[in-house]
Amino acid sequence: MSLIVEKTAGGREYKVKDMSQADFGRLEIELAEVEMPGLMACRTEFGPSQPFKGARITGSLHMTIQTAVLIETLTALGAEVRWCSCNIFSTQDHAAAAIARDSAAVFAWKGETLQEYWWCTERALDWGPGGGPDLIVDDGGDATLLIHEGVKAEEIYEKSGVLPDPSSTDNAEFQIVLTIIRDGLKSDPKRYHKMKERLVGVSEETTTGVKRLYQMQASGTLLFPAINVNDSVTKSKFDNLYGCRHSLPDGLMRATDVMIAGKVAVVCGYGDVGKGCASALKQAGARVIVTEIDPICALQALMEGLPVLTLEDVVSEADIFVTTTGNKDIIMVDHMRKMKNNAIVCNIGHFDNEIDMLGLESYPGVKRITIKPQTDRWVFPETNAGIIVLAEGRLMNLGCATGHPSFVMSCSFTNQVIAQLELWNERTSGKYEKKVYVLPKHLDEKVAALHLGKLGARLTKLSKDQADYINVPVEGPYKPAHYRY
Amino acid sequence: MSLIVEKTAGGREYKVKDMSQADFGRLEIELAEVEMPGLMACRTEFGPSQPFKGARITGSLHMTIQTAVLIETLTALGAEVRWCSCNIFSTQDHAAAAIARDSAAVFAWKGETLQEYWWCTERALDWGPGGGPDLIVDDGGDATLLIHEGVKAEEIYEKSGVLPDPSSTDNAEFQIVLTIIRDGLKSDPKRYHKMKERLVGVSEETTTGVKRLYQMQASGTLLFPAINVNDSVTKSKFDNLYGCRHSLPDGLMRATDVMIAGKVAVVCGYGDVGKGCASALKQAGARVIVTEIDPICALQALMEGLPVLTLEDVVSEADIFVTTTGNKDIIMVDHMRKMKNNAIVCNIGHFDNEIDMLGLESYPGVKRITIKPQTDRWVFPETNAGIIVLAEGRLMNLGCATGHPSFVMSCSFTNQVIAQLELWNERTSGKYEKKVYVLPKHLDEKVAALHLGKLGARLTKLSKDQADYINVPVEGPYKPAHYRY
Amino acid sequence: MSLIVEKTAGGREYKVKDMSQADFGRLEIELAEVEMPGLMACRTEFGPSQPFKGARITGSLHMTIQTAVLIETLTALGAEVRWCSCNIFSTQDHAAAAIARDSAAVFAWKGETLQEYWWCTERALDWGPGGGPDLIVDDGGDATLLIHEGVKAEEIYEKSGVLPDPSSTDNAEFQIVLTIIRDGLKSDPKRYHKMKERLVGVSEETTTGVKRLYQMQASGTLLFPAINVNDSVTKSKFDNLYGCRHSLPDGLMRATDVMIAGKVAVVCGYGDVGKGCASALKQAGARVIVTEIDPICALQALMEGLPVLTLEDVVSEADIFVTTTGNKDIIMVDHMRKMKNNAIVCNIGHFDNEIDMLGLESYPGVKRITIKPQTDRWVFPETNAGIIVLAEGRLMNLGCATGHPSFVMSCSFTNQVIAQLELWNERTSGKYEKKVYVLPKHLDEKVAALHLGKLGARLTKLSKDQADYINVPVEGPYKPAHYRY
Amino acid sequence: MSLIVEKTAGGREYKVKDMSQADFGRLEIELAEVEMPGLMACRTEFGPSQPFKGARITGSLHMTIQTAVLIETLTALGAEVRWCSCNIFSTQDHAAAAIARDSAAVFAWKGETLQEYWWCTERALDWGPGGGPDLIVDDGGDATLLIHEGVKAEEIYEKSGVLPDPSSTDNAEFQIVLTIIRDGLKSDPKRYHKMKERLVGVSEETTTGVKRLYQMQASGTLLFPAINVNDSVTKSKFDNLYGCRHSLPDGLMRATDVMIAGKVAVVCGYGDVGKGCASALKQAGARVIVTEIDPICALQALMEGLPVLTLEDVVSEADIFVTTTGNKDIIMVDHMRKMKNNAIVCNIGHFDNEIDMLGLESYPGVKRITIKPQTDRWVFPETNAGIIVLAEGRLMNLGCATGHPSFVMSCSFTNQVIAQLELWNERTSGKYEKKVYVLPKHLDEKVAALHLGKLGARLTKLSKDQADYINVPVEGPYKPAHYRY
Repeated sequence: MSLIVEKTAGGREYKVKDMSQADFGRLEIELAEVEMPGLMACRTEFGPSQPFKGARITGSLHMTIQTAVLIETLTALGAEVRWCSCNIFSTQDHAAAAIARDSAAVFAWKGETLQEYWWCTERALDWGPGGGPDLIVDDGGDATLLIHEGVKAEEIYEKSGVLPDPSSTDNAEFQIVLTIIRDGLKSDPKRYHKMKERLVGVSEETTTGVKRLYQMQASGTLLFPAINVNDSVTKSKFDNLYGCRHSLPDGLMRATDVMIAGKVAVVCGYGDVGKGCASALKQAGARVIVTEIDPICALQALMEGLPVLTLEDVVSEADIFVTTTGNKDIIMVDHMRKMKNNAIVCNIGHFDNEIDMLGLESYPGVKRITIKPQTDRWVFPETNAGIIVLAEGRLMNLGCATGHPSFVMSCSFTNQVIAQLELWNERTSGKYEKKVYVLPKHLDEKVAALHLGKLGARLTKLSKDQADYINVPVEGPYKPAHYRY
Repeated sequence: MSLIVEKTAGGREYKVKDMSQADFGRLEIELAEVEMPGLMACRTEFGPSQPFKGARITGSLHMTIQTAVLIETLTALGAEVRWCSCNIFSTQDHAAAAIARDSAAVFAWKGETLQEYWWCTERALDWGPGGGPDLIVDDGGDATLLIHEGVKAEEIYEKSGVLPDPSSTDNAEFQIVLTIIRDGLKSDPKRYHKMKERLVGVSEETTTGVKRLYQMQASGTLLFPAINVNDSVTKSKFDNLYGCRHSLPDGLMRATDVMIAGKVAVVCGYGDVGKGCASALKQAGARVIVTEIDPICALQALMEGLPVLTLEDVVSEADIFVTTTGNKDIIMVDHMRKMKNNAIVCNIGHFDNEIDMLGLESYPGVKRITIKPQTDRWVFPETNAGIIVLAEGRLMNLGCATGHPSFVMSCSFTNQVIAQLELWNERTSGKYEKKVYVLPKHLDEKVAALHLGKLGARLTKLSKDQADYINVPVEGPYKPAHYRY
Repeated sequence: MSLIVEKTAGGREYKVKDMSQADFGRLEIELAEVEMPGLMACRTEFGPSQPFKGARITGSLHMTIQTAVLIETLTALGAEVRWCSCNIFSTQDHAAAAIARDSAAVFAWKGETLQEYWWCTERALDWGPGGGPDLIVDDGGDATLLIHEGVKAEEIYEKSGVLPDPSSTDNAEFQIVLTIIRDGLKSDPKRYHKMKERLVGVSEETTTGVKRLYQMQASGTLLFPAINVNDSVTKSKFDNLYGCRHSLPDGLMRATDVMIAGKVAVVCGYGDVGKGCASALKQAGARVIVTEIDPICALQALMEGLPVLTLEDVVSEADIFVTTTGNKDIIMVDHMRKMKNNAIVCNIGHFDNEIDMLGLESYPGVKRITIKPQTDRWVFPETNAGIIVLAEGRLMNLGCATGHPSFVMSCSFTNQVIAQLELWNERTSGKYEKKVYVLPKHLDEKVAALHLGKLGARLTKLSKDQADYINVPVEGPYKPAHYRY
Repeated sequence: MSLIVEKTAGGREYKVKDMSQADFGRLEIELAEVEMPGLMACRTEFGPSQPFKGARITGSLHMTIQTAVLIETLTALGAEVRWCSCNIFSTQDHAAAAIARDSAAVFAWKGETLQEYWWCTERALDWGPGGGPDLIVDDGGDATLLIHEGVKAEEIYEKSGVLPDPSSTDNAEFQIVLTIIRDGLKSDPKRYHKMKERLVGVSEETTTGVKRLYQMQASGTLLFPAINVNDSVTKSKFDNLYGCRHSLPDGLMRATDVMIAGKVAVVCGYGDVGKGCASALKQAGARVIVTEIDPICALQALMEGLPVLTLEDVVSEADIFVTTTGNKDIIMVDHMRKMKNNAIVCNIGHFDNEIDMLGLESYPGVKRITIKPQTDRWVFPETNAGIIVLAEGRLMNLGCATGHPSFVMSCSFTNQVIAQLELWNERTSGKYEKKVYVLPKHLDEKVAALHLGKLGARLTKLSKDQADYINVPVEGPYKPAHYRY
């Protein structure tokens, strides 16, 4: 796509694939609203008082139908919003079009190049001469990263006049980041400093981003307060677990139409994501094998009847391989060479480096046959056998299907709205320092409570006497902080 | 589409949506071949002797990727083939294109009108001046029906000179059938008699078609031998059960992206199809309720923890409704009016008359909003609440997804190949009368055996002593005819 | 026990372990009645007309609490009853005591020797000078066998004066049978002929007995009509499947207290019993491996995610071995030698010859340590490793636990009552020849229907129009004979 | 039983039911050792250095076979041990006999009165003139409670000369506690102070005891350091969850033989114990309904397909009721009156006050019929309908079956051994204050690791590069403290 910002009739900026899909997007947004009771309840509860009036929110989070409902909840509460996706394949173009037309500045399309991806991120952060956003909704931490790297480069430049050097790194993506910062520095050597000054805080969606935040907190380099939404119970134990239980088979089916029953599937990692994936595959009739580094998670797998082996033990016998680890270098090209013909390899955990895509692409004589977008067969020259790689090693549920379903995203995104409100409401109180926080348990319980009615549930109420007996307030929170659910 | 037959460079007739999708179809056919070991084994075993040399086969069966592998197995064994789909939404256009270009005369596309549908059926049966096919592969019995109705009309016409009168029926589809026969009669009053004369037999794929055949056998009107493939164990207990367990959630996800976990789902009917659907929904986290007329199937549902209630009991509380009965008038417009907003209604059992589509369409003031093809929201004027109907009431796994996966279809279709071979090889022996037959158990066991290696299974072998002890041959068959599996 | 018949105050014969347990037995019988709606419905429907008035019924079927409710249903309908167990370990002594005291002549206790077992069988068949029973309820066919062998011996004796020679066979149990017949012949050379003359027929409970009956039918040696209760759908697809799903883990837990989760379990055979066992073990968290001879059942296992391998493949890795085949020589001593220390070996399929008990007992240097009754550790001298054998290789759910639960046995036993009524009512009509019959489908459906109310189910009713559409009567039966459920 | 302490030949005190069962106990202990790899590994690792040499350990924890292996692990590491059970029904008499004969001073039998129970507790704490134990292994906190109440009473007595007054409380059990303390005070007014002085600390097994400890910590009344073993991941997420998944159906089956399939079961509470129970019941074919106060746990139940309702909604329709809440007054007599005839009511969560046993016993006209020990039918006079209460409202898995299986208890008890070692090794270092501690994550991971080999698992090893990437040590611990598993 040509990287030229467009404008709506009303003057709002955007860059999406196809504005004519906005009506289709709107229809699906309306369906999703019925499935997202937490977000709709936020509109009812907070909408009238317009708490976000005056707030600029930048989001870097998969631009899907569900995210559209999140964005329109933020705008319903008074915010101005700019948005990009946090994954090159995860945008649903009809969702992007509807939001761009109706509600917010969107820069996102399915199938961005890395260059385009970072251009979109920069656009979402750029609120014009007045600087950056007040708040960030981040997923994986790329928006946060850009600001931190920008500030770092500006400091070096101020001290030493040295510009960032993209050729200083082998990492293709980081070269692009440095290029963007370098080019920005030339026009405004205080751009990211000004952003940092304005920023009230970030709420981070996922494990990977949270890990980065805790590392920055530990090293004292975190530039603004952060709320770790990922570790709300109603996020990590719902979205990661039940979301993936739903969307892993969805992605497999849409990408390959393969029968799961009877197959041998390897799930690398048995955290919340791995647990959801293993459960889905087992229930669909696959024989599931787990790989793990952590003995506790390994023992959990065993208690569910899943053998725990190493990838080497099973690489030549399995039909489906799924990475869920949040780590890198899980399935290497040397593993892939040994797999059965048409073994399926995919990632639902983290960046595309869980799978050694670089090694695969540079394997001598390897041939790539694109069956359809996000479904490639890679054929090795020695054996003429091929493996099927989904979404180029990126999150397959977003690349090959439509991500998690609305209901479970309503849990996650209600946490996001509450986190953003908390940061904004306390922006002058000093409550939040440059640290990473999780939401208090009573808010976590509130998120859950907002989702019960839709499913017809009726809670039991504690009597005062019972509450005293177990030493909790009648209205909750009901569990100690260390409770694991 | 304009109903004009096209021709390949080599002169073979066809009518498909888009010939440019043939390459894409070929890639997916090649993937499917790896998943269809039974069909590939037939090619290896029978290909060299070309048993179908000289045989004309007409197929009326969903024109999907899996069917493409079936068709090319038939041609690999020497047959000439003409094909149409048996469902207006079930064709995969890339599969049709690849077959039309490379292997057989295809008349099929996704989204036919009823008019177009019967035109395609007629084309598939029309082998030119030399008459009709030698063999039919039927699914649901429409090709068989056309011939039987044609013969009946010709007899009346011969006796009385009276032509079929389309206005004699209310059924819109049957009006089209009568029109086709009437028009045919004018040009050749013996057309269907000639077809009947040539026909060696039909092999029928599914419950609905089989029921029709047994009724014709009972009334003495069956015109040629029929093999009931549906009731091979390796068909009904695999395709119907495990196929639907796979493809029901696939269809739901592709059509609606709705989260299944937490929802209340009603499965109407607990036969093999219903069992597969209920199992899939339960495992995805839905609360499943079953409706049944048969006390035995009802008791089976209860033993699996599924409550058995009537549709009336639950119509206003459930979120998802699936019909699997093979009967008509299961979900009526009066039920639909009482459903929750955005309740999903779909059919995976039989024709679109399981759901009262006629009643819905003619409901005063009802409004249809097409979200995307095969996904319609119907809004009732009184409540302004809508329900979501999939695939216009037709088979949702074929209309909204890609049908059953290759591996399970390989079981079904290997039965088809064996049935066709049996009919053809015995065409002059008198072995088969004008009756309905099932394949003998040793062939059923053979079909299963051909699918074990792909899944890494190793069978135990009976000793002679053990075989004698349980009174079976060492090589099988191992079970009495009444065994239920 | 001394083999002397005792008598109640009222003069009825019996031999049980401990008459003081009668009150306890009565309490559990009363609980079971609430769980056995089919039998209780028979009492209500048929009790008033006393259809069995004048009928003598001999039963050879596990003398459990559930059987007690069956016996008292037969007596409530007017029958006189004599009973023995069909397994040396399956009697529940409190049930036997209650029935002996209150309702029928019982000869059964837990832990009979083989000698005692056949003495009990003979007692149950001996109605005094007037000859044998009118009807037999058999399970496994031992009562039927004794009569057939008796008649055969009497014929030989009549022709040639030669008595049966127990030393003519290696089979220890058959030696006892021949001894009993020989001793009987001396006192009455027409004893079994007289029995045969009087006998109206037998209803047989289980696969093993049914196989024997079909073999006798095939060879023309069957002496009286037989109804195959085992193959009623409401028997084989319920008792065999759901009964074992319940009672296999029950037996494992009571016998060994072993944690099933995390273990590797091998299920030999994947028929109805094997399916129930595999399901229970999988759901309890075991990794289940199946062995099979039949490719169709093997493919079913694979579709449920269970690998199919041979015993040799897994013998040294598995923790639990269960035989369900109905065949002999499944787990041989040579397998047992290679098992892990404290591997558990048990049988829930058939006679104790599924496991090579003979080979184990005669293994040089093997040591048997009885942990508790029916739980033995056998230690091999080479390795000093032991295996744990349950119920001496006999049915472990009856030997180590209390067999199947009441509700599922109500299905089986309601079939028995209906079969006995059918034989008795038609005793003079000639309807039943010396062949094996299954109950007609409408009675099978009736049995199911009698069990729905207890579980709160509500059936849907067909309209006349719908019934016509699928060509069945409104009131059923709803399925063709070949339907597999 | 007469409350007179007996002595072994070697002079060790004990009081058990039947010393002749010691051999049987020993056989089962030997079987259990094979299933408890964590404890056996502790013996191998720590046994040679005799770290507990000189330590006196008092345990108050179900005196089962598994606990026997724990006790003999403590003695193998050099400790002297005195033991009582923490539940009147949970002792396995053969286990108690074997330990009393071979290893430690045991005061425990199945079916203690409350009076006997507290006598046993006092005996276990009484190490003679030299005072009390160095360490306590507690389960539910009764040993800890007795010391805290004793110290409190002694302080009051010292200040004011006032003795505890048993009639000051309505609670029958607390009356006994006060009586014991009062009687002790008369003979030694510093008895519990001396105990407190000597005590190094307690390790507590279960949720209920842990709650008491945190309350004492909060109020500043905790007298010695405590390690919360319950909240080790390898305890609460294993024993509570997988243990109950195993032992709930075990208890139901042994107590009632009832068929679980088809029944409606209510699980009150969806914490770890409730999750295990619900999973077991669902998998056995029951329809499970959950009651909850906590919206997060409620939403988890819904995601697993379990409806969340109140007890009032379902009380008259369900067949089985299980309490797992850790709270009191869950099922009241007013609920029980409305239940179906023969509904089963049981508790697997906490004390017998989860069920209103007091209300039931004092209900006018109610009749108790003991079917067998721990299985009572209570008949209400108005309806003549009865309910079946298991284990008199106490923990049914211990009262009606044999508690959790060895393997999962090995996880829990390895934590206990490690906790006791930690307290003892640090007894003079000041590391532990009068607070409640959990074990550090690396020890938790170690416990898990010790249990993998038995189940044939193979862990994947992190490379240094991967470990750095996710910022953890190569050897673990692998997760942040807040991780929920």
